[in-house]
Amino acid sequence: MRPSKRAPDELRPVTLERGVARYAEGSCLVSFGNTRVICTASLEEKGPPWLRGTGRGWVTAEYSMLPRATHERTRREVNSGKPSGRTQEIQRLIGRSLRAVVNLPAIGEKQIVVDCDVIQADGGTRTASITGAWVALHECFTWMQNRSIISINPLREPVAAISCGIYQGQPVLDLDYAEDSAAETDANFVITGSGGIVEVQGTAEGKPFSEEEFLSLLRLAKAGVAQLVDLQKKTVA
Amino acid sequence: MRPSKRAPDELRPVTLERGVARYAEGSCLVSFGNTRVICTASLEEKGPPWLRGTGRGWVTAEYSMLPRATHERTRREVNSGKPSGRTQEIQRLIGRSLRAVVNLPAIGEKQIVVDCDVIQADGGTRTASITGAWVALHECFTWMQNRSIISINPLREPVAAISCGIYQGQPVLDLDYAEDSAAETDANFVITGSGGIVEVQGTAEGKPFSEEEFLSLLRLAKAGVAQLVDLQKKTVA
Amino acid sequence: MRPSKRAPDELRPVTLERGVARYAEGSCLVSFGNTRVICTASLEEKGPPWLRGTGRGWVTAEYSMLPRATHERTRREVNSGKPSGRTQEIQRLIGRSLRAVVNLPAIGEKQIVVDCDVIQADGGTRTASITGAWVALHECFTWMQNRSIISINPLREPVAAISCGIYQGQPVLDLDYAEDSAAETDANFVITGSGGIVEVQGTAEGKPFSEEEFLSLLRLAKAGVAQLVDLQKKTVA
Amino acid sequence: MRPSKRAPDELRPVTLERGVARYAEGSCLVSFGNTRVICTASLEEKGPPWLRGTGRGWVTAEYSMLPRATHERTRREVNSGKPSGRTQEIQRLIGRSLRAVVNLPAIGEKQIVVDCDVIQADGGTRTASITGAWVALHECFTWMQNRSIISINPLREPVAAISCGIYQGQPVLDLDYAEDSAAETDANFVITGSGGIVEVQGTAEGKPFSEEEFLSLLRLAKAGVAQLVDLQKKTVA
Amino acid sequence: MRPSKRAPDELRPVTLERGVARYAEGSCLVSFGNTRVICTASLEEKGPPWLRGTGRGWVTAEYSMLPRATHERTRREVNSGKPSGRTQEIQRLIGRSLRAVVNLPAIGEKQIVVDCDVIQADGGTRTASITGAWVALHECFTWMQNRSIISINPLREPVAAISCGIYQGQPVLDLDYAEDSAAETDANFVITGSGGIVEVQGTAEGKPFSEEEFLSLLRLAKAGVAQLVDLQKKTVA
Amino acid sequence: MRPSKRAPDELRPVTLERGVARYAEGSCLVSFGNTRVICTASLEEKGPPWLRGTGRGWVTAEYSMLPRATHERTRREVNSGKPSGRTQEIQRLIGRSLRAVVNLPAIGEKQIVVDCDVIQADGGTRTASITGAWVALHECFTWMQNRSIISINPLREPVAAISCGIYQGQPVLDLDYAEDSAAETDANFVITGSGGIVEVQGTAEGKPFSEEEFLSLLRLAKAGVAQLVDLQKKTVA
Repeated sequence: MRPSKRAPDELRPVTLERGVARYAEGSCLVSFGNTRVICTASLEEKGPPWLRGTGRGWVTAEYSMLPRATHERTRREVNSGKPSGRTQEIQRLIGRSLRAVVNLPAIGEKQIVVDCDVIQADGGTRTASITGAWVALHECFTWMQNRSIISINPLREPVAAISCGIYQGQPVLDLDYAEDSAAETDANFVITGSGGIVEVQGTAEGKPFSEEEFLSLLRLAKAGVAQLVDLQKKTVA
Repeated sequence: MRPSKRAPDELRPVTLERGVARYAEGSCLVSFGNTRVICTASLEEKGPPWLRGTGRGWVTAEYSMLPRATHERTRREVNSGKPSGRTQEIQRLIGRSLRAVVNLPAIGEKQIVVDCDVIQADGGTRTASITGAWVALHECFTWMQNRSIISINPLREPVAAISCGIYQGQPVLDLDYAEDSAAETDANFVITGSGGIVEVQGTAEGKPFSEEEFLSLLRLAKAGVAQLVDLQKKTVA
Repeated sequence: MRPSKRAPDELRPVTLERGVARYAEGSCLVSFGNTRVICTASLEEKGPPWLRGTGRGWVTAEYSMLPRATHERTRREVNSGKPSGRTQEIQRLIGRSLRAVVNLPAIGEKQIVVDCDVIQADGGTRTASITGAWVALHECFTWMQNRSIISINPLREPVAAISCGIYQGQPVLDLDYAEDSAAETDANFVITGSGGIVEVQGTAEGKPFSEEEFLSLLRLAKAGVAQLVDLQKKTVA
Repeated sequence: MRPSKRAPDELRPVTLERGVARYAEGSCLVSFGNTRVICTASLEEKGPPWLRGTGRGWVTAEYSMLPRATHERTRREVNSGKPSGRTQEIQRLIGRSLRAVVNLPAIGEKQIVVDCDVIQADGGTRTASITGAWVALHECFTWMQNRSIISINPLREPVAAISCGIYQGQPVLDLDYAEDSAAETDANFVITGSGGIVEVQGTAEGKPFSEEEFLSLLRLAKAGVAQLVDLQKKTVA
Repeated sequence: MRPSKRAPDELRPVTLERGVARYAEGSCLVSFGNTRVICTASLEEKGPPWLRGTGRGWVTAEYSMLPRATHERTRREVNSGKPSGRTQEIQRLIGRSLRAVVNLPAIGEKQIVVDCDVIQADGGTRTASITGAWVALHECFTWMQNRSIISINPLREPVAAISCGIYQGQPVLDLDYAEDSAAETDANFVITGSGGIVEVQGTAEGKPFSEEEFLSLLRLAKAGVAQLVDLQKKTVA
Repeated sequence: MRPSKRAPDELRPVTLERGVARYAEGSCLVSFGNTRVICTASLEEKGPPWLRGTGRGWVTAEYSMLPRATHERTRREVNSGKPSGRTQEIQRLIGRSLRAVVNLPAIGEKQIVVDCDVIQADGGTRTASITGAWVALHECFTWMQNRSIISINPLREPVAAISCGIYQGQPVLDLDYAEDSAAETDANFVITGSGGIVEVQGTAEGKPFSEEEFLSLLRLAKAGVAQLVDLQKKTVA
């Protein structure tokens, strides 16, 4: 029995709300249950110097949590003078995931910065971030098309992410915080709308897991992402 | 004529929404027009070491902006390794303002950390932060009273803040971003429910101002804060 | 009775000594009683990149204290890797105060850096810094005029600063350290030679203050600054 | 055809040399072809404060590269004031991988720090590090047993790691730098002596990969790790 | 011919002024020609943690320059987040030089921090610092004796320092900035009152120097230090 | 009697091994007994901006120790955010020593970065570094000559370094760690192939030393360096 009473293959209630940030070119407030993340996409006319002359654009991501997004208050990272290893891992993951479905030359020599700021954290913040970030990025590209900055939409297809894990011996989909902190194995999957795998990360928290266990997680993830992608499509339609 | 068509002594629409952060002991989402700030109050059982043996508590504040709260994206301060001078000024101001109405010995040797995170910035983020932070702090103290951590509510009275300025030669209340960036003089006032002044900061952006001009700003501020305090009282009732 | 036996409206002995730094374009050693600050003004031919093409110059300020300027030794800020919030507040205040009386286009696209280094600290270091910095800046502009780098002196008028406070219920002028640490209210005023107000900062350290109290401090400040401006004029004559 | 002429399922020549650091409790110089890493294990009698009272020990890892381990010189991270995101990801991975096979309570309240310093980098530095680190850790535990600091060896079984990837459409084992920089998909596997999976990380560098492709990489990795584990066992015998 | 017209073995005018810092336990303003350094000695009742239980005290030094001590303004080190290599070298040298003549157990488990802040820099700031620091330290120890914090003066003998160099082929004493920047060889000597050598640092700026050249510099230094020690003795008498 | 049983004027076994770093333009593994340092020389086509237009090149050095090079593990400097004072002193010394024998204009406007990474530390790491760095630099210049990047070898002559000290009252050559930590006086000498002195650093750890003692150290050093230079010449022949 999961703490949330969900079935093993049941997502938390997921919502995607567009246009939540008045000044950003694209934005989305994503909720996976009690996890809530504000995603914004900002067009920077002047990209980083190393883009110049490459004939293509770039999409990068930053991630942070409000100090009291968490059950206990977390110290701001600015006070330790640098993003933590965990933060850096997550923002690199979000950036890679988005770039996997973006036609970079179609952007021109510009950079889009996607910011994922966690307002409330109940597990799965990185997967919610990727899922919401795609919507914000889509809105940004539409904004650019409307202003004839780009001629075609550089997004090849949707991309979304979900976590799975083995909780009390049972493979389950979309871990919340209570499950995440007790799971024996924890895995994150980033999968495209057409079912291609962009990123797989599986970690044994306690004892190592078997190939069979891993494959059951992958199956759960594919089904979960399919639902997320449906919702993404409806949101941007 | 103000860009927002408001009368010179007219506040923007102000809202205070309690209980917006599921895990915090106290929280408030404050809006002054398009300026929106999430304020949370976190009880830290274990205060800073220098509190020990003093027989009193402490209230401190931190302030930050989401990168795309602003019209143009702002670089995260964690990437420069430290809070900017502006951030530090604001968080010191918020902390001082709150402490001015808190009976610190009534808290015991505990610390409350108030976080003000600006979700959207259209001028007046520091005054909105102080006004919302008081509500979050009130909610936190109520939470503590309900659990018998404290016996009386340590808040002596409300405190709120508002900006005023001289815009196109005219003293006006509650500057938005468009006014703020063009004002000749810019002043912030922190005033208690009983009308006591806690903090006054006036700056000539262009030519120096006269005592008379300054007094007209003070009068506008007193009337504006009275309205904010009314709203605070209704919110926590 | 003030600890220093001064009358409520009495400044400490103030001296301004020009030309104390052999290599600087302008310099002034300012004393407000036991508070002593070395102010230097340095012309930087090559200003910051953002000045280029603006057709005007810039004046900025930095502030620091020798570790043993204070009663107890203070740790050097270089050892914590960044200037404290207090330091940043003060250097921003000094810069703003000076710029309020400078005709920036008359400098050309150059930057003047004013350094205020506190040799001995007995309260009022920021107000002494502003008062002495104006003299150093004047000397620097004269140096530039003598070399035909500028044709007119870009200083429109003098600017000086003084602190006031409510000490044992009595409004007093020019707080020394003993008064400053016990004052109920503490305010700093930056005022020009012609009586215009450039900056007002009033803070209730204990209970809030009233409008009447604040006005009595402002009156003391105006009289005090008038004396400082007289001395500035004599010094640069 | 692989640049190194290896068969798709062929490891580079792998060597593990014990006892290379005179002062460390355990050490191993590991080579995967031209990739060379010095791994040392250091017993710290006094572990981190948070271990106290937990009744168990801890194993942590740090990772770095000599500046000229790489084809082009890489700037030292000390000069940017912090480890890069990549370095932090790798050292977290090494630590998790080792802890997965360590009986932490059997160490007592002590910490072992494993340092992996890359002397020469030709791809696969993180997998070589994990493989060599296990040998250094084993040597350290033997050292502790010989001195009766611990009674049983806390290592439950070997753990080793290998990278795989899809290079020119072909799944291949143990990518060197030439392959790594051109691979469409890149995956790292950390697997124990008994075949349990500790960590799986797969990333599409270009187009997403399919479940089938991923499974073929996993099969290559299992066979490769089996060879590495054999060599580890011979080395510590 | 030296730029200053001095004879090869002639010091610049040297002055040592005691008691220049009102709040410090010991202080000295030292001038070697246009080089001027404020030295203060601060007693810290609570030394660093590692002193505890050692039964002896410690003397440490810090060094800095005002930004406009130099011919061109120098950026404050706090702005780069750390002391430069040069600063660290100098403060380690000052600390070692002073400790060489201090009976550390006679201080008890206390620390004296000596701060050397260069007000004006015309070459030889480190040697002036050491020479003045000894006077400040002496004054501090006298202050401690007067309050019966220590029973005997822990200074065994004076220590002073001087630079020498080969300028236009000629060994000369006490280089000023003009000579220092053109000298072929530059050496600093720290020598005690009884003629013992505490520190020797010689550096070829251009071509290497011979043993004979080095010995001629040592001879100059010994004579120079003898004069400095005489002045130190008179100053503290 | 020395702990190592060596005669007072006896070096430890010294070896210089070229070509140890596959990717570097020049490299050398130097051993002075148990002290082992990897030195690499890296040609940077694009030197620092200040070189441009000077018509000459530059040689700079960086130094670091693996954390477990030492008897007790040493914290990585990246974790404290900056190189220590000791590290900075050593890398400045290595750079100066090498530049003393390099004809900088003969390099053109390029920079060579020499990295000295201590693999194992048993005293004398800075002198071993200089001695090995010269070999790495020589190899790098040969590499450049072979590719016609330079026409003549910019090295004027060899340079090597050795430490000496007074250990139990006896002047001895080439201190190992056991001697170094107990020596009364410790000196480092950098001397060229033709016997010119490039750098002399002598420090009294306990009581000051006399001129005679210092001269006996210099004599030992000259004989020791002569042996090192012979070995350098054989190594690069």
